[in-house]
Amino acid sequence: MKLYYAPGTCAVSIWIALHWLGADFETERVKLGSYEYKKINPSGAVPALDTGDGNIKTQAGAILSYIADKYKEKDLGPDEGLEDEFLFNQISAFLSADYHPAFWPMFGPKNYTTSRDEKDLEKVVEAAYKKIDSVAIILDNMLEGKTHIYKNKRTVLDAYAYILSRWLSKTPKSWTEYPNLKKFMETMENDEEVQNIIELSTKEI
Amino acid sequence: MKLYYAPGTCAVSIWIALHWLGADFETERVKLGSYEYKKINPSGAVPALDTGDGNIKTQAGAILSYIADKYKEKDLGPDEGLEDEFLFNQISAFLSADYHPAFWPMFGPKNYTTSRDEKDLEKVVEAAYKKIDSVAIILDNMLEGKTHIYKNKRTVLDAYAYILSRWLSKTPKSWTEYPNLKKFMETMENDEEVQNIIELSTKEI
Ligand SMILES: N[C@@H](CCC(=O)N[C@@H](CS)C(=O)NCC(=O)O)C(=O)O
Ligand SMILES: N[C@@H](CCC(=O)N[C@@H](CS)C(=O)NCC(=O)O)C(=O)O
Repeated sequence: MKLYYAPGTCAVSIWIALHWLGADFETERVKLGSYEYKKINPSGAVPALDTGDGNIKTQAGAILSYIADKYKEKDLGPDEGLEDEFLFNQISAFLSADYHPAFWPMFGPKNYTTSRDEKDLEKVVEAAYKKIDSVAIILDNMLEGKTHIYKNKRTVLDAYAYILSRWLSKTPKSWTEYPNLKKFMETMENDEEVQNIIELSTKEI
Repeated sequence: MKLYYAPGTCAVSIWIALHWLGADFETERVKLGSYEYKKINPSGAVPALDTGDGNIKTQAGAILSYIADKYKEKDLGPDEGLEDEFLFNQISAFLSADYHPAFWPMFGPKNYTTSRDEKDLEKVVEAAYKKIDSVAIILDNMLEGKTHIYKNKRTVLDAYAYILSRWLSKTPKSWTEYPNLKKFMETMENDEEVQNIIELSTKEI
């Protein structure tokens, strides 16, 4: 398996999850949206995972479910049963469909207005901060009284919630200001294996 | 089961799916973001599904997987096996995490800039049109040579792709201008049961 990633992106959560699962994989750093990379993933986005069957897998949430299922013996996916699987999918959908998109206008304000005036772009980023705060509050509530996002069990979704939440430090209200999220993040920051991957994934190559 | 919906929203895809699955359910029209509705779903968004276990289910993609699994005998979910389940989850994630969010700035430009100047808000909507076109092209490619979004099999995801794609008619480039999507949409528009639900869901009550 080969994971295509870029530093600081949601793709790094797949790296952490693959590591936790004990998978045999390599990684390749790419330039988002570049001509070269679009030959691999036409959308130009990461993550993309090549599992060797001729199709490149995309969508972080779907990839996380896939690998958790592939290495089921590690028990880093949902518990069995309709309701427990739903809860897992619901959290995953919240992360990919509400939490993650809230950050897009902060990273790429030029995709959210046709104006190129610096002041107008700043207003887009300002608005993004407000939206980001509202979804971070939802995440913080989900973490009440626990340091895992799914039930009180370590799963691949912890890696996902962690990597996305690191972006809060680029907003005026960092993750330290959300009490439950703070505890969750500190647990991850104190995990040496996780920090090794953060370091590896930001290295110039 | 009770589905909370608002006309024209992604919640209507759940209604269609529940109908296809032959589920026993009622519907309740709500005012998005209203004080009354926030007592049911604190985020104020639809869909929300009450399955009677004390938790309100949210997240369209997760709900669609849940109901397809609950009424498995109707075979409107993924085929069995790791790869087939991945493909289903990938399409669902594309729809909820890339396609759907592309429309948000068009519906609510005020969430994407702190400016309240009409001209600035128009620029947000203009930028949204560009982004919407780029994801609609991806969807159109996914539908090449078929009138179902998952493999060539009718699933709950058809209802989801259909309801979201109806929003294209509010952009300068309607769904009729995407050749594969056009065929898919026409199939759904010609489905009397689907059209009945569209009508029911837009009725004032
Ligand atoms: N819905 C996609 C979103 C992927 C996404 O937005 N990836 C970002 C990095 S975190 C990216 O590659 N952005 C650059 C681009 O889209 O060109 C997923 O969950 O995988
Ligand atoms: N990620 C959520 C998004 C839900 C969503 O955006 N719903 C829209 C209707 S299509 C809504 O209720 N918007 C009004 C609001 O958020 O207040 C899902 O897939 O269920």
